[in-house]
Amino acid sequence: MVQQATAPDRLPDALIPSLAAALGAASVLAGPDIPPRNESDWSTLGPLRPLAVVRPVDTAGVAAAMRICAEHGVPVVPQGGLTGLCGGARPVAGSVALSLERMVGVEEVDTASATMTVRAGTPLQAVQQAADEAGFFIPLDLGARGSCAIGGNLSTNAGGNRVIRYGMAREMVLGIEVVLPGGEVVTSLNKMLKNNAGYDLKHLFIGSEGTLGVITRAVLRLFPKPGCTMAALCGLSSYEHTVRLLNAARRGLGPLLSAFEVMWPDYWDVVTQKVPGIRSPISGGHAGYVLVEAQGIDEAVDGPRFQAWLERQAEEGVIADAAVAQSLSDIRAFWGVRDAAAEFKQVLGPHESFDIGLPVAAMDDYVRACRAALEQRLPGIFALFYGHIGDGNLHIVAGVPGVEPQPKQEIVETVYAMVREFGGTVSAEHGIGLTKKPFLPYVRSEAELALMRRLKDALDPRGLLNPGKVL
Amino acid sequence: MVQQATAPDRLPDALIPSLAAALGAASVLAGPDIPPRNESDWSTLGPLRPLAVVRPVDTAGVAAAMRICAEHGVPVVPQGGLTGLCGGARPVAGSVALSLERMVGVEEVDTASATMTVRAGTPLQAVQQAADEAGFFIPLDLGARGSCAIGGNLSTNAGGNRVIRYGMAREMVLGIEVVLPGGEVVTSLNKMLKNNAGYDLKHLFIGSEGTLGVITRAVLRLFPKPGCTMAALCGLSSYEHTVRLLNAARRGLGPLLSAFEVMWPDYWDVVTQKVPGIRSPISGGHAGYVLVEAQGIDEAVDGPRFQAWLERQAEEGVIADAAVAQSLSDIRAFWGVRDAAAEFKQVLGPHESFDIGLPVAAMDDYVRACRAALEQRLPGIFALFYGHIGDGNLHIVAGVPGVEPQPKQEIVETVYAMVREFGGTVSAEHGIGLTKKPFLPYVRSEAELALMRRLKDALDPRGLLNPGKVL
Repeated sequence: MVQQATAPDRLPDALIPSLAAALGAASVLAGPDIPPRNESDWSTLGPLRPLAVVRPVDTAGVAAAMRICAEHGVPVVPQGGLTGLCGGARPVAGSVALSLERMVGVEEVDTASATMTVRAGTPLQAVQQAADEAGFFIPLDLGARGSCAIGGNLSTNAGGNRVIRYGMAREMVLGIEVVLPGGEVVTSLNKMLKNNAGYDLKHLFIGSEGTLGVITRAVLRLFPKPGCTMAALCGLSSYEHTVRLLNAARRGLGPLLSAFEVMWPDYWDVVTQKVPGIRSPISGGHAGYVLVEAQGIDEAVDGPRFQAWLERQAEEGVIADAAVAQSLSDIRAFWGVRDAAAEFKQVLGPHESFDIGLPVAAMDDYVRACRAALEQRLPGIFALFYGHIGDGNLHIVAGVPGVEPQPKQEIVETVYAMVREFGGTVSAEHGIGLTKKPFLPYVRSEAELALMRRLKDALDPRGLLNPGKVL
Repeated sequence: MVQQATAPDRLPDALIPSLAAALGAASVLAGPDIPPRNESDWSTLGPLRPLAVVRPVDTAGVAAAMRICAEHGVPVVPQGGLTGLCGGARPVAGSVALSLERMVGVEEVDTASATMTVRAGTPLQAVQQAADEAGFFIPLDLGARGSCAIGGNLSTNAGGNRVIRYGMAREMVLGIEVVLPGGEVVTSLNKMLKNNAGYDLKHLFIGSEGTLGVITRAVLRLFPKPGCTMAALCGLSSYEHTVRLLNAARRGLGPLLSAFEVMWPDYWDVVTQKVPGIRSPISGGHAGYVLVEAQGIDEAVDGPRFQAWLERQAEEGVIADAAVAQSLSDIRAFWGVRDAAAEFKQVLGPHESFDIGLPVAAMDDYVRACRAALEQRLPGIFALFYGHIGDGNLHIVAGVPGVEPQPKQEIVETVYAMVREFGGTVSAEHGIGLTKKPFLPYVRSEAELALMRRLKDALDPRGLLNPGKVL
């Protein structure tokens, strides 16, 4: 079983001097020098002050910090851009926060291999820009791009809007370097798409939220820049039509299909009626709304193809209404309808937000059952459903109007109990961290959890790395 | 460190009766009933008779067999279609062969999720056909499709010709079920593209060649059927031009690019001059030859696009000569030049074959250095180079004419020593098994190997599952 390290009650006297001697005084912040930003992430857990914040500038520094903390029996919490929503990077009591924020930069772009080697602390946006300047494209993208670090994106196996085409973050990684809990450095910076020389080590660390090792560098796969983007916003008369449209998009747009976002009517009505500045290109009253996006190679060929595909869907009665973007500004406006969720705090007042996953076929049944269960348990509750349906990813926003604090526990339990019933997942893209840990057994069997614990024990037998997270 | 189980000198008396009692007598073959086919795979290692062959029909049977063998301290060697080239499925002394050959069939096609649930023993070709009948496409394809089992494809993380577009076998898997060495069943048959609920367990077992667990079922991702295929065979004046063409193909064909096969002149000359029935659509005399293939959505749109792209490459001087396939029969003829390697045994006489990987930028330098090293060590040797260059995968065929047995050790050592020098891999797609194990340290650091051994110890502490393979 996973050992829970007993955090030392107070800072061991020799820890800070040892860290400062190994890493340089400027790399170790303690006491009043600890920056408040390192006390929490974007979860709602609130701040917790670590014993110290260590900020190495290279892999050797990370390894030294890990080794010294292990020698003192002090837990280490790795930190990237601190934008996680589940508390994965939030310090735990008696821990040292190991921040990768000074380990930044693109080390190499290899245009022949179409790869980029980056340091873990590099912000995603800087990674995207470096790829762009080299004539390539990094498809990984999410709202926090300016703040999040690529190492955190990999540790949490970030998703985003274009998973249907490019896969999750793990699919964009060819090699990694990682520091194990004892301080051993494992450098596995493979650049080849095909490499079956022994076990694939990278996938063990990608998505394990810094509980098995600390990612210090990575080799990312670069993609060709899309030559053009097409988008349409469609109204449909049933969820069955939505699935038909998804299958038609898979067939008719093939690998160009880059997003398939679905919005249920409650979501649509709130966004188009209450969020300021949203202009809807189609009228309301439909059973469902889909934003379908394709990235083409060149406008002259792929633009008319997209238009013809959409017209065929109208002729065949798959869609009831649709608008095609005629310009980049139209595309932005269409995504505005989908991204309006960012304004929900202002528009809806207090509520709970969810990132869950379901098999595509079960999704509409889930939405109806979940809504009914919420309404039964908390009369008057609102619940809005939307998400990246092509990937099986559903987001939910639910709250009881005018109530503060919200009945968080009841809402959360109801939503996740239904996820369990429908064979879904409590985390599609945000991870487990601390906040979703109680619900992990809803969607993972005891055998799966036992195997995860066995891996944790094998790599971190003393339970000193990011303790209490995920498991 | 990894325990090497001491195989029992003889069959423990109670083993066969216990297995027969749990699985039924028809599932357990011992003594003279052991089929010769279960004594070896397609490697050159030759046959080795196991203590028994167990052929369960379901996951419970696999679990029972594993548990009973563990109780008797008898090693288990999992077997699929037995088409592996590195000895991964060949029995070891004193082991029971656990064959999945009767665990066949497609359990479910979920058209909304675009997934298929299959049993591990199902031949790849049957999986492909079931996808086709459901209106989808399984991009995994290799020469042994009629004989190899999907479970073996996943255990070895099979590659094939279209990795540049669809990735390796692991990229096509959403969920698996696995039986651990002690007999515990871990069912993790996820169907969702996004699922970050805890560690991703599937990647631990995919590509670990049956040394950590036995895959019994899998959920595969289905893809849309390609609407058309375009291909061209090009002659180029230098490797630098080949890399330019690769980058132009990535940009100009985008996600339609499905194969980028390179042939060095020695390969080309042998194939076009000595292999019967090969007709070359372009003349020889070039520094390199590329077969570029794209899978489009519809012929009317993507055919002319491919043609225009190719003409642009000619105008810009990237290619010196090219022929575009005008029909399916042309496409087959073009691939015939590339697939002629299957005839080498007849044409070239005895030789050694290799499956290695290199960063794309290093590949031509490697070819020259490897050829020079081979010629220096073994004057008169021939060496032909070709491969899936878009994926960093190079195949080599080398032999000394008229010599039998071939100086295998010298050839192998020379080729792999150069791989080590150029930062490549000794296995791009075939795995390590037994035959490549001595060379794994050429391309994996002691830290990587130590971590692999730690994983093996964690999952198989007694070293009873496929012992001596990979590590």
